[in-house]
Amino acid sequence: MKFGLIGGGSWATAIAKLLTDNKNAINWWMRNTETLEYLKLRGHNPHYLSSVLFDKSLLLLNTNIEEVISNSDVVVICVPSTYLLDILEQLPRHIFKDKIIMSAVKGFIPHNNQLLHVYLHEQFGVDQNKYVSIMGPCHAEEVAAEKLSFLTFSGYDTTLTTLLSTKFKTYYLNTVVNSDLWGSQLAAILKNIYAVGAGIVHGLDYGDNFLSVYIANATNEMNVFLSQVMKHMDLQSQACNYCNSVYLGDLLVTCYSLHSRNRAFGNMIGKGYTVKVAQLEMNMVAEGYPATRAIFEINEKVGAAMPIASTIYNILYNGKNAKIAFKELQQQFK
Amino acid sequence: MKFGLIGGGSWATAIAKLLTDNKNAINWWMRNTETLEYLKLRGHNPHYLSSVLFDKSLLLLNTNIEEVISNSDVVVICVPSTYLLDILEQLPRHIFKDKIIMSAVKGFIPHNNQLLHVYLHEQFGVDQNKYVSIMGPCHAEEVAAEKLSFLTFSGYDTTLTTLLSTKFKTYYLNTVVNSDLWGSQLAAILKNIYAVGAGIVHGLDYGDNFLSVYIANATNEMNVFLSQVMKHMDLQSQACNYCNSVYLGDLLVTCYSLHSRNRAFGNMIGKGYTVKVAQLEMNMVAEGYPATRAIFEINEKVGAAMPIASTIYNILYNGKNAKIAFKELQQQFK
Repeated sequence: MKFGLIGGGSWATAIAKLLTDNKNAINWWMRNTETLEYLKLRGHNPHYLSSVLFDKSLLLLNTNIEEVISNSDVVVICVPSTYLLDILEQLPRHIFKDKIIMSAVKGFIPHNNQLLHVYLHEQFGVDQNKYVSIMGPCHAEEVAAEKLSFLTFSGYDTTLTTLLSTKFKTYYLNTVVNSDLWGSQLAAILKNIYAVGAGIVHGLDYGDNFLSVYIANATNEMNVFLSQVMKHMDLQSQACNYCNSVYLGDLLVTCYSLHSRNRAFGNMIGKGYTVKVAQLEMNMVAEGYPATRAIFEINEKVGAAMPIASTIYNILYNGKNAKIAFKELQQQFK
Repeated sequence: MKFGLIGGGSWATAIAKLLTDNKNAINWWMRNTETLEYLKLRGHNPHYLSSVLFDKSLLLLNTNIEEVISNSDVVVICVPSTYLLDILEQLPRHIFKDKIIMSAVKGFIPHNNQLLHVYLHEQFGVDQNKYVSIMGPCHAEEVAAEKLSFLTFSGYDTTLTTLLSTKFKTYYLNTVVNSDLWGSQLAAILKNIYAVGAGIVHGLDYGDNFLSVYIANATNEMNVFLSQVMKHMDLQSQACNYCNSVYLGDLLVTCYSLHSRNRAFGNMIGKGYTVKVAQLEMNMVAEGYPATRAIFEINEKVGAAMPIASTIYNILYNGKNAKIAFKELQQQFK
């Protein structure tokens, strides 16, 4: 199995570490050619997880994305969802033929709210049985530090999914396998919305008692939405235990992490910054921002009760005052 | 309705604040007569939440516990479970006749693993319909600071439970009512065990990724145990949504709080102290310690799968090495 890796950020670098620690060579493409040349020369990424030194003999760095894909059996896509279309649209439609796709993307295709496996199937004819998502509560920094972490591999073909998961498993990385492709990917997106909300809660100067009530109710709302999606799409057979790490664990690590961009963005909103100013201050888009709109739009079809996500939507997109909005919202908390 | 309050710690002081902020006079007994005299004179508790100044005209402080109970319609019991028997055993058996009992006790009667309502029913003939528990994610310090918090009132008589809850509700305290007397009280005990485990996780130098996986799996285990108790006791009708604040919220605030005594105790165990040394260092018993044994013993009858609680039991009571025990345990995590 030859691996290809698309992306050069911190999570892509963590994934490169996992694969190469298992002695897998990787064809590796990233947009930033300077970083790529630096990695070739020095064997570590100067911008992300720079303490991770790679075995250079295992890094087949290449500025040509089409060659990277063609030379690989398994292509791991690991870029912020915002850049997905820029990268994928230019590729020839046959390029993913017979390839296995793994996705570590935590967001929708911009503008049409599609999950990556749906888009790749529609646009490139990718077989959905050959698509496996990699999700779970995993700060890249802790993978770099080799702190024990868990990743969940989700795919319709359990044999393939299990086989792929073994390529990532190391003494500091444990793996879980399930077949809930929709739920795992959606949970990874939802948790960014609720982390924006956790930031708002903090920015509004609520305490730890209320934060725990907020997260408990957000957990419930996530479960309600995921169950409703399963029903809506007739996918009940893939439903999983929503206490598992890929759902609740990822929500917790994101909501409680002080390093989460989504939480930092929400914190500024809670403190009274406008959305625009908060985004300029942060110098990048928090993934929870587009996710809030996307889930709101999807839920118009799904019809789950989502008071928290709707409140965050109204704050971010309709200029609703955060303080007033949360005062109303908390009256529904149990 | 005349209220009596038994207890003088930080949580009892917070409850006194809630009741008196609602203009309820309280007959108040506590074991420490010096604190009681100080409160009478100065209107604040010198040892706990000392910033809370009471309206002295509402405090009927009394060193005679029998008078306090006799003069009250509703008796709120709020002492550490370790002291329950010392206080209750000496009382005449008729004293709770026609009284409504509210309990903020988060633990079992020592030595026999009974919940307070079962003990009071057996020993004092207390009507279980006149017993209401007060539980939920609520650091007393945040009540003192008037940070919005949630408490859940659980009782079989919904009308009475709802009425009582209104006596505590203020602009900084929201109330939830349910009829899951067993589940609410058991969750408050279980969370202390899992908080000891969260401390062990920290003491063993695991990171945030693993902590979130641990708490997600602990949440699942709590749900499994509570469901199994419901089944075992044929109480399904009272089963609640375990994402509600009294279950998941309380678990989160306790596991993530740096101020939790249970977490601090576990942290020392994780760092390699013996149980005896950790207890001496802390100068008091963490409630999770006796709770671990009690739940272990109860579960011998209930038969729920509790790998986490069993692991903590083996570490605390059978001298199992924490590092080895968690290495084995995490292999079961999802």
